[in-house]
Amino acid sequence: MPGEPLAEGVLDLLGLLAYASLTAFFRISDDAALALSLPDKTALAELAVAEFGHFQLLRDRIEELAADPTTVMQPFVGPIDAFHARTAPSDWLEGLVKAYVGDEIAADFYRAVARVLDPASQQLVLAVLADTGKTEFIVARVREAIEADPRVAGRLGLWARRLVGEALGQAQRVAADREPLARLLVGDATSQLGDIGRMFAQLTDAHAARMAALGLAD
Amino acid sequence: MPGEPLAEGVLDLLGLLAYASLTAFFRISDDAALALSLPDKTALAELAVAEFGHFQLLRDRIEELAADPTTVMQPFVGPIDAFHARTAPSDWLEGLVKAYVGDEIAADFYRAVARVLDPASQQLVLAVLADTGKTEFIVARVREAIEADPRVAGRLGLWARRLVGEALGQAQRVAADREPLARLLVGDATSQLGDIGRMFAQLTDAHAARMAALGLAD
Repeated sequence: MPGEPLAEGVLDLLGLLAYASLTAFFRISDDAALALSLPDKTALAELAVAEFGHFQLLRDRIEELAADPTTVMQPFVGPIDAFHARTAPSDWLEGLVKAYVGDEIAADFYRAVARVLDPASQQLVLAVLADTGKTEFIVARVREAIEADPRVAGRLGLWARRLVGEALGQAQRVAADREPLARLLVGDATSQLGDIGRMFAQLTDAHAARMAALGLAD
Repeated sequence: MPGEPLAEGVLDLLGLLAYASLTAFFRISDDAALALSLPDKTALAELAVAEFGHFQLLRDRIEELAADPTTVMQPFVGPIDAFHARTAPSDWLEGLVKAYVGDEIAADFYRAVARVLDPASQQLVLAVLADTGKTEFIVARVREAIEADPRVAGRLGLWARRLVGEALGQAQRVAADREPLARLLVGDATSQLGDIGRMFAQLTDAHAARMAALGLAD
C-alpha cells in the first residue's frame, strides 16, 4: 500500500501545523499583554489572530480527510508545549522576537513542505504561507530598541539563538518519533536523518541571515 | 452647532465599544486557557477572535472619522479594565458564563444604540451585531455542568448577577463622566439619568430572562 504511509504522514503534518498555530495564537495573545502602547498591543494581537486563522484552515482540512483534529494533534502537544514552556519571553522585546522568529521559520517550513504534498494540502499550505510575514512593525520596533541601546542586540541575538535551538531540539524529537512524517519530509532516501539534518540546516541558515538583517548579533 | 455634540457622542461610543471588544479578545483568550479539552479551548478562542474582528471594524470607523483610535478609546480604559480586574473568573465555568453574559449584553446594547446612530455607524453596529451570539456551545456546557451537579446553578447564578452588577456600576460611571455619550444614548430628555436607568433596566430584564433559560438561579 504505497499510498498509506504518505497519507499518514500528511495527517501528522497537518496535526503538527494545526497545534503549532493554535498554540501560537495563545502564546502571542499572552505576550501582547506586555505591550506598553495600544497600537503595539493591537499589532501583536493581529498576528495572534492570523495564527488562529491558520489553525482553522488546517483543522478544516483534517476534518475533510475524515479525521478527528484532537486525535491528530495529540502527538505534538507534548513537544510544542515543551517548546513554549522553555521559551517564555521575559519582556516585550523578547515576545516580539519570538513572534518574528516563529512566523519566519514557519514560513520557511511551509515553503519546504509544500513541494512534497498532494495538491489539496499543497494549496492549503500555500494559502497559510501567503498570510505570514506581517511582521514589519516588529522589525521597526526591534531596530528602534537597538538604536536606543546597542547592548539590546547582543541580548536579543542570544535569545533568538536559544529559540531556534529549542525548536530544533523538539523538531528532532518529533522526527525520531513519527517515522511517516519524517519520510514525507525527506522522501524514501536511505539516510533519512541526514536529509532531515540538511533541511534543518537550511532553515537555520535562512534564520541567521534574517537575524543579521534585523541587526541582531548571531 | 447641533451636529457637534452628536458627532462627539458617536466617537465616544465607538471608542467605548472598540476598547471593550479589544479587551474582551484578551480576556476570553486568557480564559480559554482554562479549558480542559482542545475543542472547548478552540470554541472559546473563536469567540475571542470574533471580538477582535469587532475591534478592527470599530477602529477602522474611528479612523474614517479622522480620529485617533488610541485617543478615542482612552477615557474607557479605566472603567473597562476595572470591570475585568473585579471579575476575573476563578474557573472554566465562570469564564464561560462571563463570555456568554458579555456577548449577550453587548448584543442588546448594540441593538439599543443602533437606532440613534448616523447611517454609516448604524451599518457598522449592525454588522458587529450579526456576528454575536455564537454561544450555543456555552449554553450546552453550562447545562451539562448543572445536570451533573445542580448546586452549580446557584453558584453560577450569583456569578452572573455579580458580572451584571459590576458592568452597570462601570456603565453608570461612564455615563456620568461623558455627557455627550449619555445624550446620544437617551436623546435630549430632561431626565437623562432616569432614561439611562430605564435603558439599563431593560438590559437587566433581558439578562434575567436569559439566565433563567440557561437554568441559572437569579
